[in-house]
Amino acid sequence: MRDVVEIGSGKTAQRGYHLDDIAIVPSRRTRDVDDVSTAWQLDAYPFRIPCVAHPSDATMSPASAVALGQLGGLGVLNVEGLWTRYENPDKVLEELSTLDEDAPATKRLQEAYAEPIRPDLIAERVRQMREGGSTVAVRVSPQHTLALAPVILDAGVDILVIQGTIVSAEHVSTTDEPLNLKEFIADLDLPVVVGGCTDYKTALHLMRTGAAGVIVGVGADEWSTTDTVLGIRVPMATAIADAAAARRDYLDETGGRYVHLIADGDLQTSGDIAKALGCGADAVMIGEPLAMCDEAPASGAWWHSAASHPQLPRGAFGVAGQSLGSMEKLLYGPSDDPDGQLNLFGGLRRAMAKCGYRDLKEFQKVGLVIDK
Amino acid sequence: MRDVVEIGSGKTAQRGYHLDDIAIVPSRRTRDVDDVSTAWQLDAYPFRIPCVAHPSDATMSPASAVALGQLGGLGVLNVEGLWTRYENPDKVLEELSTLDEDAPATKRLQEAYAEPIRPDLIAERVRQMREGGSTVAVRVSPQHTLALAPVILDAGVDILVIQGTIVSAEHVSTTDEPLNLKEFIADLDLPVVVGGCTDYKTALHLMRTGAAGVIVGVGADEWSTTDTVLGIRVPMATAIADAAAARRDYLDETGGRYVHLIADGDLQTSGDIAKALGCGADAVMIGEPLAMCDEAPASGAWWHSAASHPQLPRGAFGVAGQSLGSMEKLLYGPSDDPDGQLNLFGGLRRAMAKCGYRDLKEFQKVGLVIDK
Amino acid sequence: MRDVVEIGSGKTAQRGYHLDDIAIVPSRRTRDVDDVSTAWQLDAYPFRIPCVAHPSDATMSPASAVALGQLGGLGVLNVEGLWTRYENPDKVLEELSTLDEDAPATKRLQEAYAEPIRPDLIAERVRQMREGGSTVAVRVSPQHTLALAPVILDAGVDILVIQGTIVSAEHVSTTDEPLNLKEFIADLDLPVVVGGCTDYKTALHLMRTGAAGVIVGVGADEWSTTDTVLGIRVPMATAIADAAAARRDYLDETGGRYVHLIADGDLQTSGDIAKALGCGADAVMIGEPLAMCDEAPASGAWWHSAASHPQLPRGAFGVAGQSLGSMEKLLYGPSDDPDGQLNLFGGLRRAMAKCGYRDLKEFQKVGLVIDK
Amino acid sequence: MRDVVEIGSGKTAQRGYHLDDIAIVPSRRTRDVDDVSTAWQLDAYPFRIPCVAHPSDATMSPASAVALGQLGGLGVLNVEGLWTRYENPDKVLEELSTLDEDAPATKRLQEAYAEPIRPDLIAERVRQMREGGSTVAVRVSPQHTLALAPVILDAGVDILVIQGTIVSAEHVSTTDEPLNLKEFIADLDLPVVVGGCTDYKTALHLMRTGAAGVIVGVGADEWSTTDTVLGIRVPMATAIADAAAARRDYLDETGGRYVHLIADGDLQTSGDIAKALGCGADAVMIGEPLAMCDEAPASGAWWHSAASHPQLPRGAFGVAGQSLGSMEKLLYGPSDDPDGQLNLFGGLRRAMAKCGYRDLKEFQKVGLVIDK
Repeated sequence: MRDVVEIGSGKTAQRGYHLDDIAIVPSRRTRDVDDVSTAWQLDAYPFRIPCVAHPSDATMSPASAVALGQLGGLGVLNVEGLWTRYENPDKVLEELSTLDEDAPATKRLQEAYAEPIRPDLIAERVRQMREGGSTVAVRVSPQHTLALAPVILDAGVDILVIQGTIVSAEHVSTTDEPLNLKEFIADLDLPVVVGGCTDYKTALHLMRTGAAGVIVGVGADEWSTTDTVLGIRVPMATAIADAAAARRDYLDETGGRYVHLIADGDLQTSGDIAKALGCGADAVMIGEPLAMCDEAPASGAWWHSAASHPQLPRGAFGVAGQSLGSMEKLLYGPSDDPDGQLNLFGGLRRAMAKCGYRDLKEFQKVGLVIDK
Repeated sequence: MRDVVEIGSGKTAQRGYHLDDIAIVPSRRTRDVDDVSTAWQLDAYPFRIPCVAHPSDATMSPASAVALGQLGGLGVLNVEGLWTRYENPDKVLEELSTLDEDAPATKRLQEAYAEPIRPDLIAERVRQMREGGSTVAVRVSPQHTLALAPVILDAGVDILVIQGTIVSAEHVSTTDEPLNLKEFIADLDLPVVVGGCTDYKTALHLMRTGAAGVIVGVGADEWSTTDTVLGIRVPMATAIADAAAARRDYLDETGGRYVHLIADGDLQTSGDIAKALGCGADAVMIGEPLAMCDEAPASGAWWHSAASHPQLPRGAFGVAGQSLGSMEKLLYGPSDDPDGQLNLFGGLRRAMAKCGYRDLKEFQKVGLVIDK
Repeated sequence: MRDVVEIGSGKTAQRGYHLDDIAIVPSRRTRDVDDVSTAWQLDAYPFRIPCVAHPSDATMSPASAVALGQLGGLGVLNVEGLWTRYENPDKVLEELSTLDEDAPATKRLQEAYAEPIRPDLIAERVRQMREGGSTVAVRVSPQHTLALAPVILDAGVDILVIQGTIVSAEHVSTTDEPLNLKEFIADLDLPVVVGGCTDYKTALHLMRTGAAGVIVGVGADEWSTTDTVLGIRVPMATAIADAAAARRDYLDETGGRYVHLIADGDLQTSGDIAKALGCGADAVMIGEPLAMCDEAPASGAWWHSAASHPQLPRGAFGVAGQSLGSMEKLLYGPSDDPDGQLNLFGGLRRAMAKCGYRDLKEFQKVGLVIDK
Repeated sequence: MRDVVEIGSGKTAQRGYHLDDIAIVPSRRTRDVDDVSTAWQLDAYPFRIPCVAHPSDATMSPASAVALGQLGGLGVLNVEGLWTRYENPDKVLEELSTLDEDAPATKRLQEAYAEPIRPDLIAERVRQMREGGSTVAVRVSPQHTLALAPVILDAGVDILVIQGTIVSAEHVSTTDEPLNLKEFIADLDLPVVVGGCTDYKTALHLMRTGAAGVIVGVGADEWSTTDTVLGIRVPMATAIADAAAARRDYLDETGGRYVHLIADGDLQTSGDIAKALGCGADAVMIGEPLAMCDEAPASGAWWHSAASHPQLPRGAFGVAGQSLGSMEKLLYGPSDDPDGQLNLFGGLRRAMAKCGYRDLKEFQKVGLVIDK
């Protein structure tokens, strides 16, 4: 039944499916939309919607992270972004928001991120977020986790997100002492989310590190170029379903430890969100859409973290455009746009109602069809 | 043989096919086009062509419903549309017909439909249609069926169409008393058509409610955004064939009760109609094409019912364009356009002749090929 | 191994492949291009290349039919086209060649073909072609074969082509006496080519009528709208391979009667021709490319016979453009265009050489790959 | 498991996959990018990167071949190109670099290559390359190998590349004495690379000629028209994997003779390179990208060798555009372009690191997914 084919003599490949290759099939009862819950909880932290911010500087400032928290989602600030490199990044953000399509945007991004990270600013940004009163989460790369963790933990975050394009449970290095995720997480007393990963095995190994959540996917959207640069393209429907299988097997292996899956990539509309959750995700990481609301730090400009890599940038620069409206309207509507870009979680709720499900965990069983 | 694949470990999905993925394969005798009949009958009501109007205000006014009836099809007026909200909706329709692509059309639609429904106007509209002398049918949503049914039935319709994006035989609600379709239909002495549905099981359950006809599909065409908003995309060829299997099983289960399938979605050309009937449909619901003939209420502008939803609109607004000609030319030709948009049922008749079939029921057995 | 899938419960469809879905795989020796022969013979008539003209007025006048014959192919004049409706069609052809994209071209075609067919002109056109000294072939539709055959046969053609969009061996009519192909052909002493057909069964039945050649396909190219109007779309690679299987079975059934397959549709470039022959065709019908050479009757304008149908036109009108060059350059080069539109049969010959085959019959065994 | 389907009764075709149909799936450890090696060795010649130049005059002059050698790749000059037809081809190259899209470029190419090849210039060009100090390699076509080999060998090259669109181990001719590759190679004491080929059997036969390397593919990129002209289209992922199977079988057959596979076609970005190597290639032939760096002979214009064929050109002319930067930046970065066109081998190295592999041979085992 598994769709494995031989692409040439003796070389096999699994067939993978993108979210756009699949659709939801309502096939049982229907339900009142008001009886549907989109509540999600990660460790001790409850959320009104299963929404985690993709930690790009285009989506998350300390202020917008707090705003997302107040609206029931989880804001995540990148501690390797502009906010920890500049005392006041407003000027840089404003300049980026005015770049047009002809500008050598990648070069400008590389310059902006060439400024060194200042540990004192990490502490300052965490403090700003704490003051907002929401759950505080920051993102750090695996490469810098050992160096930056002390200052992050001292500053007092609630959730730590260790995220790189591809993270494995076993990083090999002949020069540096690599991060041992399992030992690192065991020593912490706060929940850690790690990723991205793209397959069953890596997902399972990341679960065994003790992580509370695993990120599935590499955040790819239409601006991402991980595909052309690295040859890595993640069919998200398959990646999520495979990671969900790892979650089941890990539940069995541990007698009940449930690790949350956070899908990151290919998520632009409420329909995309519904499909990712229907494949087995517990929550979704939202990137570009959050860059397009009133609260966005760069007025609608959009770039991935990897888009500023000094030697090998991966991600085109999306020039700023008109705001879709407030973050609240983005998440909860009312929408006056028919394309599924507004009322993202109202749309999810309605999809669940049409399929007769009450909560997110049930909805993971929804029927799917492949039609592309 | 069924095309079910594992999209990831343990998560399966059926493969579905759109009408555009398939084509008809003539493979036996040919027949004179004059010997072919496109007659269709629903309950006691005979029709010259298997054509039901999609009940959008862009296609159906009382007058255009009557016109379609006179030409041998079934007009259906939406009792939750503009005609029951406005004493005289001409002004609104005229304004909508002049919106251009840059206008915030969705917002304007939402405003137009914010006007409350007036029961007295329902009675008035039914009366107008009765005067036209054709079979009278109206559409009501499942949510409003219990409230609006008395006035509709009092007004005296021939056929009742209960239609929502997705309708199930079992709607669950903790707040309202939900519509029990089975009991509701059993109490009526007129034929009821219900839908849309998208799979075998829901189709079978809807048949068991006592409906005379079941709508297959969600009316999706290129203007529909059910896909991006809800993640629901219906591969019509598969949906129709599955519902046809439910019809066969229900025939067996009841010892002979035949429920008609009305395909709604992806139907723009005579070729599309032929393919839908070849998959097993008994009739087709025609939307946008009917919005583009001389008799159309909004001069060629086109929108789905769901396009005016106050919180979650689903459907782009199609601006008005040049008429394709009279409704008669649209349905019966002669065509002077090579794209299959005119002479819709003359095209169907010729397709049947090329395949050697005499009537619609026989034609459901036509051979198909998948080639995309 | 046959690729048959269930598109819905109990409804199956074969998977079909277009020529563009496949490619040739060289996998044995290579051969000098000068050692390769493209010779083809139909009944007693030898041809230098396996090229039959698609009998549209846009490709074939008596003069261009003769020109093609002199260059080693088979010209075919449509006896239901402009040349038998007008004493001098030059004025009509010239007008059609000047229509631009905004013109209501279909209506103009319908008017041009509304003129009645004159039997005396049929005799006159055949006489003109005989004078050219090449093999004389004309096309007649199945509907008009009984009426027009006497004058055609009296005029003295070498090969008769009975061609409609879809032709079956058994046409049923309650009003007219239908054409019985088997009896009709048995009474003739000249080779008859019939078609088009699209599947194994019809191909086999047409072979049993005694035809010397069977046309596979409906002539569809990018201008054809048989798909949108009738729902009939022919995956040519599959249709040809299926008809080749019918040819094999008929050979066995008759102890050696070989019926030629002439592929008609989807053939624009030398690569397309090579693929059609590689699927099992004996020859190809060339339409639009012949409309684009210096000898073309309408200066590059292009339309299918069905494009002028009075009630149900099927085929868009291609406005005239710059000539690709002489018919000789089109067929034999030298080419100075890299797109495979010139030197059509020099390209075929080189493809055969790269695959190591000497003649067309051998080349039918060439390896294929599906890659779309 | 092999994906072979019946395209019609009795006619089968293997399903093939393009590089763009597949992607790499990281699924084990990750590794420091500095611990990854891209070293490659062909016979006695070591290379820093597995990069062979596609021998078009648009990429390779004696000077740019030397430059590529100094940067760690293998330059290959075409001895049937402009440099051996003209004492000083600069004027021709400059003219070609100024052709615009409307120019009849193919005709101009045909004229430029109509000049005869001068053996004395072959010797001169090899001498120029020798002076550069890098490994010297030239390309000759199979047709001219016997005639040109003496002067090439006298001039003293290190590696001989015998390359045509399709090369077989057994070329048949009734007029010329064909090249017997096996005998020819046996008589030489330098490594020979031969190709292109597209399937297992031809690859195996070419290995048996004693070649040190076999070219897989026909160099097709978006400018190539081998497909439309000859009907030959090579799904590179499948072709490489099949050739890798031939390499394994030939290793077994010979008790250890390892023949290198050089992929030629569909390679534009670092991601494409990673995928080709992941399918089993040992090195890649780079065409158009090398035409777009500062060192390119024709200032960014690009054409295949076959684009100048006098009777049957195969390949469109790519007009010159802005340089992407120096050859060093093209190969090693740093990149300031997100599209994977710069830092080609830095991108490869990073892809290997994300998948945890140390060297190219290991990386051939990387996991793949089919997702298109």
